[in-house]
Amino acid sequence: MNHTLQTAGPDILVPAPAADALGMSAARARSAELEEQVIKDPGRFRVLTGDRPTGRLHLGHYFGTLHNRVRLQNLGVEMFVIIADYQVLTDRDVADNLTGYVEELVLDYLAIGVDPARSTIFTHSAVPALNQLLLPFLSLVSTAELSRNPTVKDEIAHARQSSVSGLMFTYPAHQAADILFCKANLVPVGQDQLPHLELTRTIARRFNDRYGAGTAVFPEPGALLSQAPLLLGTDGTKMSKSRGNAITLAADADETARLIKGAKTDSERHITYDPAGRPEVSSLLLLAALCRNQTPQEVADGIGSAGAAALKRTVTEAVNEYLAPIRARRAQYAQDRASLRHILREGNDRAGAVAETTLAEVRVAMNNHY
Amino acid sequence: MNHTLQTAGPDILVPAPAADALGMSAARARSAELEEQVIKDPGRFRVLTGDRPTGRLHLGHYFGTLHNRVRLQNLGVEMFVIIADYQVLTDRDVADNLTGYVEELVLDYLAIGVDPARSTIFTHSAVPALNQLLLPFLSLVSTAELSRNPTVKDEIAHARQSSVSGLMFTYPAHQAADILFCKANLVPVGQDQLPHLELTRTIARRFNDRYGAGTAVFPEPGALLSQAPLLLGTDGTKMSKSRGNAITLAADADETARLIKGAKTDSERHITYDPAGRPEVSSLLLLAALCRNQTPQEVADGIGSAGAAALKRTVTEAVNEYLAPIRARRAQYAQDRASLRHILREGNDRAGAVAETTLAEVRVAMNNHY
Repeated sequence: MNHTLQTAGPDILVPAPAADALGMSAARARSAELEEQVIKDPGRFRVLTGDRPTGRLHLGHYFGTLHNRVRLQNLGVEMFVIIADYQVLTDRDVADNLTGYVEELVLDYLAIGVDPARSTIFTHSAVPALNQLLLPFLSLVSTAELSRNPTVKDEIAHARQSSVSGLMFTYPAHQAADILFCKANLVPVGQDQLPHLELTRTIARRFNDRYGAGTAVFPEPGALLSQAPLLLGTDGTKMSKSRGNAITLAADADETARLIKGAKTDSERHITYDPAGRPEVSSLLLLAALCRNQTPQEVADGIGSAGAAALKRTVTEAVNEYLAPIRARRAQYAQDRASLRHILREGNDRAGAVAETTLAEVRVAMNNHY
Repeated sequence: MNHTLQTAGPDILVPAPAADALGMSAARARSAELEEQVIKDPGRFRVLTGDRPTGRLHLGHYFGTLHNRVRLQNLGVEMFVIIADYQVLTDRDVADNLTGYVEELVLDYLAIGVDPARSTIFTHSAVPALNQLLLPFLSLVSTAELSRNPTVKDEIAHARQSSVSGLMFTYPAHQAADILFCKANLVPVGQDQLPHLELTRTIARRFNDRYGAGTAVFPEPGALLSQAPLLLGTDGTKMSKSRGNAITLAADADETARLIKGAKTDSERHITYDPAGRPEVSSLLLLAALCRNQTPQEVADGIGSAGAAALKRTVTEAVNEYLAPIRARRAQYAQDRASLRHILREGNDRAGAVAETTLAEVRVAMNNHY
């Protein structure tokens, strides 16, 4: 499961069942409308996005969500990027190597172009005022509603333990706190995560109704649906760090070449883009196409009947060329851990100030001012 | 339901089922041991106690728990008194007149002798670092364990809504945060609330095992069992603000006289202490006895065959005499709302500093330091 409503994530769970077709087309229409408004007036929007710190980010994450975040930032949308360090514990007992993973995430963000002067990178555990929102929000949802959340439901069905943890169970309400603490009004999501955002919208609406006395303390954030391309891992299954089939942003050119060289393809020498019939070959074509800003067909035509080896050379070149500046920035930042930590601390402070302001409003709305 | 493990409370729920007899006698023995240690070395102990701000405190609360708190404070035990303003929302949608009730609680505390120089009075909503502890603590308990908690179970069984709120469901974990944020090692409880404290002990133990790496971040707080006398309301049922059968600390002498005059008794002129056979008469005798530091039998002997009217006069006199200095202090504090609010703010600051220190330790233990 990835934390903040993104489709990709260091170790994503089985996706929740898709919303019904009718609901989906309405959601798509609304998302397209939001996209237009973002282009027209980016200053009106604040985005909340982020990841769980459970490993390095890979190309699946990059083309699935990271790329879009940087695009939004560069359009002029204000962005909060949460490193969801408590959420790591929703499906495991101990968060191993947390310090390392958090630093790797910050490195990945900076490398791809998240600009700490414009976007706020912060960790969940550093912002008590955000976490406090969990309590009023929990008063606004029933256990039945929490159980109906697809991720929670799925986790209950597949629980490794006999019963899920309280943290997993209340996860949709945390997520509402993560989004609403900064009054984000736009959340990039994959369609499987629409139900999560719907509960956040419900919580915002109920808070305003019950405590707002006519004023809207919280916005009901809109879903910006991502059209994440489906990149397979080098073994032909879903790209995932834990399967060892992923090309990470941090990998060097040689490691990338080696991984792609070992990628599963087929024996047909003529290279064609046919996602249904030739998924592995097509995923490689798609990857090269994304890197070169071409269509997968164009990449296939360039290779023709030169076979899988030529395809792999093409993909390796495209990926390494595309990632070269990202990797260079990453290497540069990696040499200066002190400034990394400084960036994170500044982000934590900024998020903390925003959370304190929101919590102060929440206290007034709830009459917790004495 | 009263918040912090006290038997009495402004609107107590049906008590949870008592622990098994064997467990109870062990708990009693342990409590007696703790009581001895408190007398010997009060400086070793820190108590967490408190109430939900849902109304004025009455004599049931006073002789049930408040009196004991002041006793512990005056022995030299450090005390944190939480005003559980979020917990008001566990069994109702909106906390009405919260500001007023919180001020009334502070007034009651000061009136009975809680000394803000020695004891810390604070509100839940003012201490984000305390509330943040809910997240790591929720990772240490399963939904099954939360459902088994007697108060939660009872609330589920008697839910006015179709399903309990997330706040009610996670209540035992909040309570652990309330107790452990200040590392309280002693909690005065009624026996029906032992299961709550047991879960707090479990959370402390699991936290230490899982994250503590050999050091005990949290103590496992001991239960100081109160022998709360059973005072009935003036109608012969359980004393409760919401039933209008309670003598509040804030009531004046005339109101007290009027209430006691209307109290239910029986037609037998000879006054005897017989809790089973004559519960109303016996409760009145007990009340006078508590005020006069006599036994109920002694009070009964003093009245002899003078009948219910004489009993009521005796009780009225005893209560009014006992409460006179408390009421005088209350009136004095009530005239200076600014200093009331100052006391609360100082308490909040002190609790905040303690919570920040604990949270910093928790972050180190959980590797949330970047």
